[in-house]
Amino acid sequence: MAETDSETETDPSAEIAELRARQSPTRRAVSEGMEARLHTLHPVLDHGFVRVVDYMGNDAAIVQAARVSYGAGTRRARDDAGLIRYLMRHWHSTPFEMCEVKLHVKLPIFVARQWIRHRTANVNEYSARYSILDREFYIPAPEQIAAQSRSNRQGRGETLGGGEAARVLELLREDSRRCYDHYQEMLGEGIGLARELARMNLPQNIYTQWYWKTDLHNLFHFLRLRADAHAQYEIRAYAEVICAIVADWVPLAWAAFEDYRLGGVQLSAKGLDCVRRMLRGETVTQENSGMSKGEWREFEGVIGG
Amino acid sequence: MAETDSETETDPSAEIAELRARQSPTRRAVSEGMEARLHTLHPVLDHGFVRVVDYMGNDAAIVQAARVSYGAGTRRARDDAGLIRYLMRHWHSTPFEMCEVKLHVKLPIFVARQWIRHRTANVNEYSARYSILDREFYIPAPEQIAAQSRSNRQGRGETLGGGEAARVLELLREDSRRCYDHYQEMLGEGIGLARELARMNLPQNIYTQWYWKTDLHNLFHFLRLRADAHAQYEIRAYAEVICAIVADWVPLAWAAFEDYRLGGVQLSAKGLDCVRRMLRGETVTQENSGMSKGEWREFEGVIGG
Amino acid sequence: MAETDSETETDPSAEIAELRARQSPTRRAVSEGMEARLHTLHPVLDHGFVRVVDYMGNDAAIVQAARVSYGAGTRRARDDAGLIRYLMRHWHSTPFEMCEVKLHVKLPIFVARQWIRHRTANVNEYSARYSILDREFYIPAPEQIAAQSRSNRQGRGETLGGGEAARVLELLREDSRRCYDHYQEMLGEGIGLARELARMNLPQNIYTQWYWKTDLHNLFHFLRLRADAHAQYEIRAYAEVICAIVADWVPLAWAAFEDYRLGGVQLSAKGLDCVRRMLRGETVTQENSGMSKGEWREFEGVIGG
Amino acid sequence: MAETDSETETDPSAEIAELRARQSPTRRAVSEGMEARLHTLHPVLDHGFVRVVDYMGNDAAIVQAARVSYGAGTRRARDDAGLIRYLMRHWHSTPFEMCEVKLHVKLPIFVARQWIRHRTANVNEYSARYSILDREFYIPAPEQIAAQSRSNRQGRGETLGGGEAARVLELLREDSRRCYDHYQEMLGEGIGLARELARMNLPQNIYTQWYWKTDLHNLFHFLRLRADAHAQYEIRAYAEVICAIVADWVPLAWAAFEDYRLGGVQLSAKGLDCVRRMLRGETVTQENSGMSKGEWREFEGVIGG
Repeated sequence: MAETDSETETDPSAEIAELRARQSPTRRAVSEGMEARLHTLHPVLDHGFVRVVDYMGNDAAIVQAARVSYGAGTRRARDDAGLIRYLMRHWHSTPFEMCEVKLHVKLPIFVARQWIRHRTANVNEYSARYSILDREFYIPAPEQIAAQSRSNRQGRGETLGGGEAARVLELLREDSRRCYDHYQEMLGEGIGLARELARMNLPQNIYTQWYWKTDLHNLFHFLRLRADAHAQYEIRAYAEVICAIVADWVPLAWAAFEDYRLGGVQLSAKGLDCVRRMLRGETVTQENSGMSKGEWREFEGVIGG
Repeated sequence: MAETDSETETDPSAEIAELRARQSPTRRAVSEGMEARLHTLHPVLDHGFVRVVDYMGNDAAIVQAARVSYGAGTRRARDDAGLIRYLMRHWHSTPFEMCEVKLHVKLPIFVARQWIRHRTANVNEYSARYSILDREFYIPAPEQIAAQSRSNRQGRGETLGGGEAARVLELLREDSRRCYDHYQEMLGEGIGLARELARMNLPQNIYTQWYWKTDLHNLFHFLRLRADAHAQYEIRAYAEVICAIVADWVPLAWAAFEDYRLGGVQLSAKGLDCVRRMLRGETVTQENSGMSKGEWREFEGVIGG
Repeated sequence: MAETDSETETDPSAEIAELRARQSPTRRAVSEGMEARLHTLHPVLDHGFVRVVDYMGNDAAIVQAARVSYGAGTRRARDDAGLIRYLMRHWHSTPFEMCEVKLHVKLPIFVARQWIRHRTANVNEYSARYSILDREFYIPAPEQIAAQSRSNRQGRGETLGGGEAARVLELLREDSRRCYDHYQEMLGEGIGLARELARMNLPQNIYTQWYWKTDLHNLFHFLRLRADAHAQYEIRAYAEVICAIVADWVPLAWAAFEDYRLGGVQLSAKGLDCVRRMLRGETVTQENSGMSKGEWREFEGVIGG
Repeated sequence: MAETDSETETDPSAEIAELRARQSPTRRAVSEGMEARLHTLHPVLDHGFVRVVDYMGNDAAIVQAARVSYGAGTRRARDDAGLIRYLMRHWHSTPFEMCEVKLHVKLPIFVARQWIRHRTANVNEYSARYSILDREFYIPAPEQIAAQSRSNRQGRGETLGGGEAARVLELLREDSRRCYDHYQEMLGEGIGLARELARMNLPQNIYTQWYWKTDLHNLFHFLRLRADAHAQYEIRAYAEVICAIVADWVPLAWAAFEDYRLGGVQLSAKGLDCVRRMLRGETVTQENSGMSKGEWREFEGVIGG
């Protein structure tokens, strides 16, 4: 991406130790929980990580924006919590947009392709036109090697038996190794193929890296979809690490999000009607619910808990 | 916007002094120039201001994102400047998106309506459904009271003479005062009209406030359009204050922006062809330029300087 | 906004009759219900309207996009309805983004300021820098002139009595007329003030116009917030007209939206827990619910119906 | 993505013939040039295509939006062209946003990953969690198999010699075939691996498909970057096909775009200063230009033509 050469490769852990050791005074809002997280490489999957590079705002900043006030929110933490819960409950999204986070993430390409569908974010990805990718591929742990789900066309079901899992691992490892060997051969002196062409030979379990920056409202939306049980395990692994980071960053907003979004449910008009009838003592079945079989099954799962 | 009552009105200047006095250690990237600006009320027009509430990133953060690197950019400032200029010249916008700023702005409603057309930003505005607006109206300085431009259907021309200007000031002041008196009467005990209705009686020179947060790339876009000579004076006054703030925040990015965008020009294919012909010694006129009269006039303005 | 003069004012109703009379063949997806709506001025409030200028897509286009298929969705309408309901239930928003609508709207400025907060849309507004606004102001119908709500800081309560309402109408009418008279005086030959300045004297109940274009997913989001009982009546009036238009445009998507969003509710984790306990026969009160008083009141309103 | 099974595979060409044969009357704005393009598969690379699925607006719609008018733009085509050129020259982007296009694109995954970086668009991609991808891989034509550029770290230089090109083709073909064979083996009855896992073994030259919808302003931005000589050949091939489509769709807007953006250049403040000095007869060299060597080289390329 640049006209000058990249600097010599340095050891990340030394750079990170240096970054964590350095502190400067600031007049900005600070989150103690997030300061403790900054720059640490939080490992995900076999070679990936999430690292907080920077953040803006804290719980008080949400309150401050909602009030368009000069100072630092109310004086009492209880009021802040109540206001934040009110904002979350009534879908006031703009105060949450006033917090921002910048992450450095290392992740397999097939995960990156799901992630990038969240468009309200800023991204700088490591360029395989400009640089050579490292020989690092995601190889699932044996307990993650699962059969196609029978009930859900886009999910996985039971873990495969030892023989099948071993064969999958063998194929993934061998194809990764061979494709990368050929990538190197094409880039090497004998051929000298352009990097922008050679990269197309790499399978989608190779790791890439990016800087990803988004606001808290859009991050919550990402987490609601990607920390969900229906999300693919590999992206969920990243979402869960980010959930733990957010809980430290903005504990009041996180608690409201957990109660109203992650742990909450959406009832349809029909579902709400059924709940009301059931609470009045009526016997409600799929037949008299107005719902399709699929909807009724999901509804029962929700209210049966 | 909230269920709990707003806190008692406090003196902004005391709050700001308190905010500026408080410093905390942070592991985040810091901009010394921006720290010096934080929380200060930079006055604009007669009652408005721009206040930096928070920021994320600095020049090094742009370099770091462009390289997707662990550490703090290159070791040499000259390299950082060269890379930032390269990114700006070649329209690589994503590294600039990695910096973010949050402003508290007080501005007349007719300015707010122009400003909000820049959609890639986060906004929390003071709610006149929820609160009562203050009696503060923008009344232009006499030298700003100008006639409709004859050449530009959407601009202003020469300053009006003393008598005309005085009449304009009289009308603006009287209507502002009367409309606000009636606003108060409608809200008062005798009538008790809902705030969301009473506000419609207020003219568009009344001041509102908002928190406005955007990234550096989109801020540059805003500044290119709004610090331009064709922008209405009142919004340009805000843009110019923000320009000075950005120059302190990210001096290298600002210098590149000034050279390539603010001070730069876009030549059309026809314009470029004319420049090439002129440099070869050819005499080029509107007639043989391929341009319309309007375009030729603008072209001459550009290359004649 | 343009260098050439605006054409002479023509009669809208003649233009609209002409537009409605003209039909052309197209290979695009067509919605019969929307064709019937096209170009008609649907009146809103006292001088406003909503007019459909253009649209893209129909129910089948949503199905087609979800399947990334060549043709026109499934062969059976029942399957299309089931798939659309599934997409809505599981928050698959991208297929709904594949439909687009362009509206011409005439609305008071204080309504426009609420509306524009929905940022994922394209807008071209009538420019009061470039043109002179018409003398048309929103004056509420007497039954809309209501007191400030006691329970909701940002809503209205009971309709005002005859005397109070009459005084409000008098003030709104007089201030509108006087401000507009002065606007004209400032623009007139005697003074010749620039339009971009004169407009600031106009109160916010004056009407403006814009072209507003958005996709169906974002339109649904707009309607969920603005057709809601908590929205201000004046913007709700627009939202309700648009609801009727959407129901004709994409009847299957509309039915799913009505069931899952408009008529549906969001239960928090605590609320869901309470419902489950109540269905098991437990007596649940605010005290043992884990909710605050405000939340419990809202929860009772939901499940009590 | 759906709960019901996908319909049986049908022949695209039959579906397309059927779609093209069907015409319906509409009251919407029509572009004759675009009607002729609708649904046709425009081939790109070895297995890819671009197909226009739908569009909204035409040149007159841009004019109409800029004027916020009722009818169909001005009566004279010359005025429309002048206004559209004016809008383009002065960066008035919102009228161009009033046109929208929806494309069905088949493209290799490494191209899709560049494409998706343009975030202001709506996308529905064929899901490899839900469905099995076809055995179709991009294999470059021999004349596209080029060495890494020496001057540009992210570009390609000279075409490789016959022996090297043959080896590249052999590696790409073999790895594609083997990886796909193993993909099938993992999905097959003997193993039954979940599709969401098996897909990670596929190299990035495999083809995917998506529906992609964007407005004309953002499409122009995409084309300016991706139809540029610095763009990677493979995405440029798509951009050039789309350019031809846009030229038929909105010929006036296309002509303005070609003149002001595609064929135009951006001069920096320093570059403009040099041009002015040269036109006054001064001898300007890199040394007295104020530019770096890299900038001067680019500047000479521009003005030398």
